[in-house]
Amino acid sequence: MGQHYKEIAAVALQRRQDAIPTEYLLPEEELKLLPRDLTVIPKTSKHFTSKESEIINSDAEDILSKIHSRAWTSVEVTKAFCKASIVAQQLTNCLTEILFPEALKRAQFLDDHLAKTGEVIGSLHGLPISLKDCMKTPPYPSSIGMACYANEPTTEETVLVTILRNLGAVCYVKTTVPVAMMMMETISNVWGETNGAYHSGTSPGGSSGGEGALLAMRGSPLGVGTDIGGSIRIPSAFNGLYGLKPTFGRFPVHGGQSGITGQDFIYANNGPMSRSLPALKLYCSAVLSSSSSPWNLDPKCLAIPWRSHTITPPSRPLRFGIISDNDGEITVHPPILRGLALTKAALEAAGHAVFEWTPHKHPEITRELNNSFYTLGGAAILGLTRKHGEPVFESMRGYERTFEAGEHGTLGPTRLREMITRRNALQKEYLERWNETARDGELMDGIICPASPWTAPRLGVTQSDIFCVNYTGVFNLLDYPVCTFPVTFADQSLDQVRSGWTPLNKKDADLQKDYDPEFYHGTPVALQCVGRRLEDEKVLEMTGIIAEALKAAS
Amino acid sequence: MGQHYKEIAAVALQRRQDAIPTEYLLPEEELKLLPRDLTVIPKTSKHFTSKESEIINSDAEDILSKIHSRAWTSVEVTKAFCKASIVAQQLTNCLTEILFPEALKRAQFLDDHLAKTGEVIGSLHGLPISLKDCMKTPPYPSSIGMACYANEPTTEETVLVTILRNLGAVCYVKTTVPVAMMMMETISNVWGETNGAYHSGTSPGGSSGGEGALLAMRGSPLGVGTDIGGSIRIPSAFNGLYGLKPTFGRFPVHGGQSGITGQDFIYANNGPMSRSLPALKLYCSAVLSSSSSPWNLDPKCLAIPWRSHTITPPSRPLRFGIISDNDGEITVHPPILRGLALTKAALEAAGHAVFEWTPHKHPEITRELNNSFYTLGGAAILGLTRKHGEPVFESMRGYERTFEAGEHGTLGPTRLREMITRRNALQKEYLERWNETARDGELMDGIICPASPWTAPRLGVTQSDIFCVNYTGVFNLLDYPVCTFPVTFADQSLDQVRSGWTPLNKKDADLQKDYDPEFYHGTPVALQCVGRRLEDEKVLEMTGIIAEALKAAS
Repeated sequence: MGQHYKEIAAVALQRRQDAIPTEYLLPEEELKLLPRDLTVIPKTSKHFTSKESEIINSDAEDILSKIHSRAWTSVEVTKAFCKASIVAQQLTNCLTEILFPEALKRAQFLDDHLAKTGEVIGSLHGLPISLKDCMKTPPYPSSIGMACYANEPTTEETVLVTILRNLGAVCYVKTTVPVAMMMMETISNVWGETNGAYHSGTSPGGSSGGEGALLAMRGSPLGVGTDIGGSIRIPSAFNGLYGLKPTFGRFPVHGGQSGITGQDFIYANNGPMSRSLPALKLYCSAVLSSSSSPWNLDPKCLAIPWRSHTITPPSRPLRFGIISDNDGEITVHPPILRGLALTKAALEAAGHAVFEWTPHKHPEITRELNNSFYTLGGAAILGLTRKHGEPVFESMRGYERTFEAGEHGTLGPTRLREMITRRNALQKEYLERWNETARDGELMDGIICPASPWTAPRLGVTQSDIFCVNYTGVFNLLDYPVCTFPVTFADQSLDQVRSGWTPLNKKDADLQKDYDPEFYHGTPVALQCVGRRLEDEKVLEMTGIIAEALKAAS
Repeated sequence: MGQHYKEIAAVALQRRQDAIPTEYLLPEEELKLLPRDLTVIPKTSKHFTSKESEIINSDAEDILSKIHSRAWTSVEVTKAFCKASIVAQQLTNCLTEILFPEALKRAQFLDDHLAKTGEVIGSLHGLPISLKDCMKTPPYPSSIGMACYANEPTTEETVLVTILRNLGAVCYVKTTVPVAMMMMETISNVWGETNGAYHSGTSPGGSSGGEGALLAMRGSPLGVGTDIGGSIRIPSAFNGLYGLKPTFGRFPVHGGQSGITGQDFIYANNGPMSRSLPALKLYCSAVLSSSSSPWNLDPKCLAIPWRSHTITPPSRPLRFGIISDNDGEITVHPPILRGLALTKAALEAAGHAVFEWTPHKHPEITRELNNSFYTLGGAAILGLTRKHGEPVFESMRGYERTFEAGEHGTLGPTRLREMITRRNALQKEYLERWNETARDGELMDGIICPASPWTAPRLGVTQSDIFCVNYTGVFNLLDYPVCTFPVTFADQSLDQVRSGWTPLNKKDADLQKDYDPEFYHGTPVALQCVGRRLEDEKVLEMTGIIAEALKAAS
């Protein structure tokens, strides 16, 4: 057995502690009177100067244009977000590695370059971008919530990080994830638990939960997450963010720390998360520009530059399928149901068509997805955590079972080929279902559906049988691009407990029982917009149209 | 144990026999005086009328334009190729299923449609296209050289076949393959052995060997093959053809009969083969047109329509890397070496640059590829062939070994993830090596290399330790697009046995020992042109430039 995880964690926690500039910390007295909605702090606290407050409450695209016009410097912007990220850390425990010294040095270099040449080095010049912990920024560790990696220096920068740096981005923090990035809450034996921003008693979701909380807390204008079963979209939804899970192959994935190294039955993907939708577009067009050419750096990356105006004419009426309040297995909480109704009404008012989309085999697809993670990930994860005596979280018992079944207890070549055959058949069936939506030769444009049955689950509640990634995981197996969008907030006066409702099964009943109007009041209601494979651009354009319709209707 | 393979094979062979119109058969007397080069027959035999001879010796693009202009009917064209395919079958044993009645019915329909409306139904209107046996054309079996499938009716048409039919193609024959399409010669316990067209004592290669022989014998103007380790390119090279192995995802693959169902460690691909390069372009632009939209029918297919003019300006000098006479493990036979020199000289004379490209880890990549087939395919293949008492061919002993090691003797989740990790690392390294060719910011355009050490091996010789798919298999693991092109023919007066040559290893020595100037005289010398992932269009354009240069130099 290697070093005990508690000793390892102590070293990591101390490293983080030592890297925090104490003057950035929220004063003790403010900590005593914290509101349940922690996002009030970065919006109102006098701990931030008015300039800092203006910066951290701005959207990425505005920040960029102010840096480019030299109204703001990258150094002052970076400092403001460094400070806000420390406050976010204090209140939500969302950071792992803190990279302030090199971030400020880089910001200074960028400012000097712009002052000297009048030119930016790339389209993200001077913008602080936060990174999920799996993005390698040598020599900092990429612990991904595992003791084995927690204090191990990394040596090779993740390709995406190199691209972002070359575009002018300033990398200043890395953010918490759950063990191996395979839970829907953000908790690990190294960093402890991350809590939500809009309600300190809820989870920010996972696995990009640190990003979710940090962005909601105005500790970052734009972050990078990863998604293999919902890891961008669940935390984006729980934190009221736009978050894009792209089609695999659009964005470079090479060189990240992997939860299940070498697993490619379900593709792991990365994508941007932000409070601002234009920030997502900006990120995509920058990373997928010819000047970045990520396909020359990552063999899995498709040489398809980011396209604009894929909906033509841009004003044409769209036709959406919308999933009602359940996927055939799990029913959403009442605030999500209201979110669906609000979105449908807003789109119809804006002249778009919305019809009910019956989820095709969603529970079956989700089971296939989860089982594949357990089968392929058991030894990969438990083989590493056991060495350091790490206890297993309840929602990861599936991995423990396959690990204990042994290397040959779960998978041989025949079983693998059967898994692949089933997955491919499910992909083909879903494609056909979508084709069947054709009317006058035109297919359904997109699907609108929940990202999760919860607005944001109470801390710890998903460490049980009601763990549920149904609504997101389906689109990982299908490899469809999806973007989350915020709709509204849970409201105890509007979102009553269901009455006269018949649960679909015991899990459905248990999950619904967790709904409590008072407790969940104020948590973000968000949904997903789903496109067809490689229609990533269209998904962001559709999300923009939905956001506009919601705004017009509110 | 199921029915014995010999009984099954007898039924299949009888079915084929019964489907042959006896009047198409070459008369007995002609069979007595067969030349070694069988392609002389379709070029000169009086068994064909002059019109038939003109048709079968025409290129696909000319045939199409004559059908479209109504100079020829699809019925007469189809009949001519039906007849020529039967002669090819007589001389090379290249057919499995014979679909003449429905082909002629379809051709008549197409002629009537054109006569009535003045319009073609698609860009392949009226053109006979031959299909590798794995393409399903219900109710005909897709035996892929295995007794278990040999008399089993199929029910669902392969997506690609549907697309070709909708474009106006006439499907009239399916062609032989080796067992499970996993040998480089075309032999099976069902259909026996297929021999080469340019030399009846050589192999047409495999696994699309029936296609290769049929096309060389003028029994088809355009055929469809599949390729997982060289199965399009090896028979294309051995039969003097252009054959495109595309990047995975460009062409629809759904619904074909699979040699190792569910295996996706190395992608199985399909693509066109023809004596004419324009025919390949025509096929690609038709299948990947918006009207076909294969990405709406196959979830693995990328929505990237076929593009033209990807080399800009089209006259710009290209820069090729060329592999010398070995890949680090296996040295080519002298005629191939001369083919490389001819091509280099022709390109340089045409103003292009050609430099020596050192193969990066080709032997290692090939080992990884072959081992993955054995690991993942052992149970898939032997589990089926054993049931019917099929003997194992020598070059497939690797599959037998893994089958006998048992379901858990070869692969568990950890070993699988290690395989994937190694494969991905090899892909990344090769990409980087290609990037290192940059000069003034411009990368090497393509690689020119042998498709095989042989021009066409003597029958049976690859059923031994000198089995070798090194030159093609590398680009399956890398997923790069490749097109073969004919250069010249082996010539006993020019291609002497190597003297003063030191073999790289025992296999290299043994393989070289097989070279015999007299025996191999007249067999086709062909090479490959390799592009980067998704540069399929560029590969065909480069191949066209190479072909022109060779023509100008000859």
